[in-house]
Amino acid sequence: MKANATQKTAVVLLSGGLDSTTVLAFAKREGFETYALTFNYGQRHQPEIEAARRIAASMQVKEHIVASIDLRAFGGSALTSDISVPKGRSAEEMNEGIPITYVPARNTIFLSFALAWAEVIESQDIFLGINAVDYSGYPDCRPEYIEAYEKMANLATKAGVKGEQQLKIHSPLVSLKKSEIIQLGLELGVDYARTLTCYDPVDGLACGQCDSCKLRLKGFSDLGIEDPAAYATI
Amino acid sequence: MKANATQKTAVVLLSGGLDSTTVLAFAKREGFETYALTFNYGQRHQPEIEAARRIAASMQVKEHIVASIDLRAFGGSALTSDISVPKGRSAEEMNEGIPITYVPARNTIFLSFALAWAEVIESQDIFLGINAVDYSGYPDCRPEYIEAYEKMANLATKAGVKGEQQLKIHSPLVSLKKSEIIQLGLELGVDYARTLTCYDPVDGLACGQCDSCKLRLKGFSDLGIEDPAAYATI
Repeated sequence: MKANATQKTAVVLLSGGLDSTTVLAFAKREGFETYALTFNYGQRHQPEIEAARRIAASMQVKEHIVASIDLRAFGGSALTSDISVPKGRSAEEMNEGIPITYVPARNTIFLSFALAWAEVIESQDIFLGINAVDYSGYPDCRPEYIEAYEKMANLATKAGVKGEQQLKIHSPLVSLKKSEIIQLGLELGVDYARTLTCYDPVDGLACGQCDSCKLRLKGFSDLGIEDPAAYATI
Repeated sequence: MKANATQKTAVVLLSGGLDSTTVLAFAKREGFETYALTFNYGQRHQPEIEAARRIAASMQVKEHIVASIDLRAFGGSALTSDISVPKGRSAEEMNEGIPITYVPARNTIFLSFALAWAEVIESQDIFLGINAVDYSGYPDCRPEYIEAYEKMANLATKAGVKGEQQLKIHSPLVSLKKSEIIQLGLELGVDYARTLTCYDPVDGLACGQCDSCKLRLKGFSDLGIEDPAAYATI
């Protein structure tokens, strides 16, 4: 399982959505051998996990792990409990307060698993596709959060204690608009037809109505191009 | 699931071992309504989970969750993979470097789940039984790690963002010797016969030979009292 010493390695959080797939392409372009990590956390978007498997295979990651964790036990979010996912909201409505689709401590949990894997394969780089523009209501999508996480992580690990390496958390999309993310991905050769970003897919297809679908569709529309993914309804 | 507003609440990490059981008793004495969180993480000590269930029931926690997470996928530790647990080591040998029983990022992962639960029940207190004296080789058992975690957690959560509350991570055992922990627990009325601390139990009984058993036995011996727990061999 230990990484090849001749190439630098990175753990990439891969949901199967547009953002994380772009980040995976970005990490590869930066010269990293990539270890993709996806979570099965009792969310509504099982089809997204299937998308992650297809993407990991087609983008030739070194290894892909789908880790099962049970966030349903704690409740508290529309993505893990029986609360309804909001549909058809305007951009203004999306930006009001902390959304019900926020999963408590999700990024903190995901990064912690990434940290464990990074420690085992002796990688010092973790990539994730958080974004502070479209997800301004999510506390754990802000740069100051990532900075604090990085500091904590360097105190948590063997390598950090020995002063041998400093772990770096890369969030290359954090200040990009959705259209800029798509532009970046297209330059990197990402096939967005493979990605699935929806909070509440219908028969495996993106619903076209939830906040996540609307943001994505607007991103493509802003670029004047068509989203190649299939939708249940738009 | 939301906590009773009249009593302050805390999430307590409960492994079923001596340290975390003492912490649970401590949190109750401090006046907290307790929510106990145990992990099933593919470790060798399944009997410890059973101990945690008995302890949670007998100590009347408000709620007990056993969360399943798969750390085996990442390997890297004697506690989650096929590496042998060391037996019969001296105190000096135990203090040499980072032990093979160290699980990568374990406390970081455990605290992240505790943070998620705390956010859902609107608790601002998390208790855990880390100890920097006996486990000096574990990077994530040090006070500076806990401090950095607390800072990160307050940036990660809704309440932290709103400035409504500050999350506090309590580690009351961090600078106590094992004998002092046992002394504290006895004062708090802990029944140590119920606890199981072993890294590698034999037929559900503590092995008496691993680092964890040896530290525990020495703690009781230093106090001049007998450990009430059952051992396979001493």
